[in-house]
Formats: sequence, C-alpha cells, structure tokens
Amino acid sequence: MEFHFPAAPESCFLSAMTLYFDDASPGMVFTSGTHRMELARIKAFAAEFDPQPFHVDEAAAKNSFFGGLVASGWHTAAASMRLLIETLPLADGIVGSGVEIAWLKPVRPGDILQVRCEITKVTPSASRPDRGSVTIRSETLNQHGEVVQIFTSTAVLSRRPV
Amino acid sequence: MEFHFPAAPESCFLSAMTLYFDDASPGMVFTSGTHRMELARIKAFAAEFDPQPFHVDEAAAKNSFFGGLVASGWHTAAASMRLLIETLPLADGIVGSGVEIAWLKPVRPGDILQVRCEITKVTPSASRPDRGSVTIRSETLNQHGEVVQIFTSTAVLSRRPV
Repeated sequence: MEFHFPAAPESCFLSAMTLYFDDASPGMVFTSGTHRMELARIKAFAAEFDPQPFHVDEAAAKNSFFGGLVASGWHTAAASMRLLIETLPLADGIVGSGVEIAWLKPVRPGDILQVRCEITKVTPSASRPDRGSVTIRSETLNQHGEVVQIFTSTAVLSRRPV
Repeated sequence: MEFHFPAAPESCFLSAMTLYFDDASPGMVFTSGTHRMELARIKAFAAEFDPQPFHVDEAAAKNSFFGGLVASGWHTAAASMRLLIETLPLADGIVGSGVEIAWLKPVRPGDILQVRCEITKVTPSASRPDRGSVTIRSETLNQHGEVVQIFTSTAVLSRRPV
C-alpha cells in the first residue's frame, strides 16, 4: 500500500486520514512532499546548534573534508521529521523513545529533500490491549534519488476507539 | 580524566585545547556548560520542524500524554549538539556517520540542560595509519541531574601531525 502526500503549506498541518494500530501493517509506505534546503537556513541552523566551519563558513568549508558547505546532520534530521509529520498520520502523533540515524551523504544548499517512510513492524502491546507499537524506517532522499539519511524509530499507537 | 568547560558566549566558539587521536583514551569525560530551554524557542523550533500539538500549543499539551508542553526531541538533540561542540575539542570537528539517540525524560520550558560526554572506545584505523575512530557516549542532564537523553556516536579523528 503506498500513500503520497503533497507538501503541506508552511503555516498549517493537514492530515487526510488517521492511522490507528488496527490500520497499520508491515509494508505500508508513505511518501512525503518535498523541502528545499536553503543556504541561509543551513547557516542559521548551524550557527545556533552545530557551529562547525563546514556548516557555517563557505570559504572554510571549501578546504574541509566535504569540499563545500553542507547542512548539519541535525538540520537534515529535523527537516526530515517535518516531512514525516506531514505525511505519517499516526493517531497519537509521532512520539518515539529513541531513534537510530545514519547519515549516508552530505546535504548541500539547494538540495531538495523528500521522505519515504515504511512501517516495517507492528507489535501488539503485551500488557495494554488498547495499543501497540509500530517500527518505522524513514529514508530521506535528495533530488537525485540518493538516500542521504535513514532513520529507524518505534512509536506507540492506539487501537481504533470502539 | 575529567574536563569542565563553562558555557561559551552565544556568538563565538572557543576551544581551550585540541584533541587528536593520540590524546584520546576510554574513560575521558568532558562536561559542558549549560543551556536553558526557553518556551518561545521550544515553540518556534517545533513550529518549524515538529509541529505536533504537545510541542506548540500549551492548552492542547495539557491534555496530552505529557500533561504539558514539552520540547521536540530533535530540539533537545540539537541543543545537546551545541553544548557538545563547545566542549569536546576533536581536531577534525565532530563528524559522525550516524547516531543512536534515546529520549528518557521530557524536556520542559525553563529546563536547564548540560552535557556529560565520555569517550568509551578508541579504535585505530586498519587501513589509514594517520587516523582512528572514537566512540562517544553523551548524556544530556536537566537541572535535577536527571538524564533526559543519551546519544552514542562514532567520529573519525586524526593522529597528531608530526
């Protein structure tokens, strides 16, 4: 089952459906809208949270390992979360107790990101019959279709109210 | 070996030393300065990257699982990265190919975060004699000394130039 969502306008968050535990099954795939990583926002995010030369200073970045300015991995992760939030309509929101992130390729100014998220596992709660958990594998792609980031997380999800 | 750093001023990043692979050993601990999580910044970060009701709307948050407004885990992670950057003076910067994050407790407006980071493993490169990798376990504590987040990452580190 595949779901595709256009990018939501910046100011609002609309979800076309609500996904309860009963609705979730392994193999469901959700594809997000897109988000362009702007140079100014990359530099401002990094100045606040990850002020390393290759994230904030174009001249210094040229001589770095990356050969040019790249977004902080935390910026890519946060931008991916926004795309995921707009796309994956979990009934209780997306609340994870942890996440595993792999950064596979640098993200550069002007790159256009999109998230492809798959439910990989669905586990009923052993102690609480009203809920379960879903494991989500979320790939962030750039405009060339290259996977720049993968994150895997598990979220709690309620059963559909009767 | 323990190192303590005061919080750096917002506008500049000063490092008192540079840590090369030769200097790193398991058990080295670095403690950061502090960062206060302001209500307005929590809401603005979430509005941009994680616009779920319990991160952006105080009234809705009261009726949520969290019983009040909480910071996005991605905001806590990014703020922790900033504290880590100010604290851990790796010669090549902190560039990880991935990270594992556990969020253990909610972070609320006014909470004061501090990072305690330990080098847990030091591995010479098998193929490149000029470098190695270090595994870092970084705990983020609140003002009550409770661990709110743990992240574990591995970074590449150069040997001291001869």
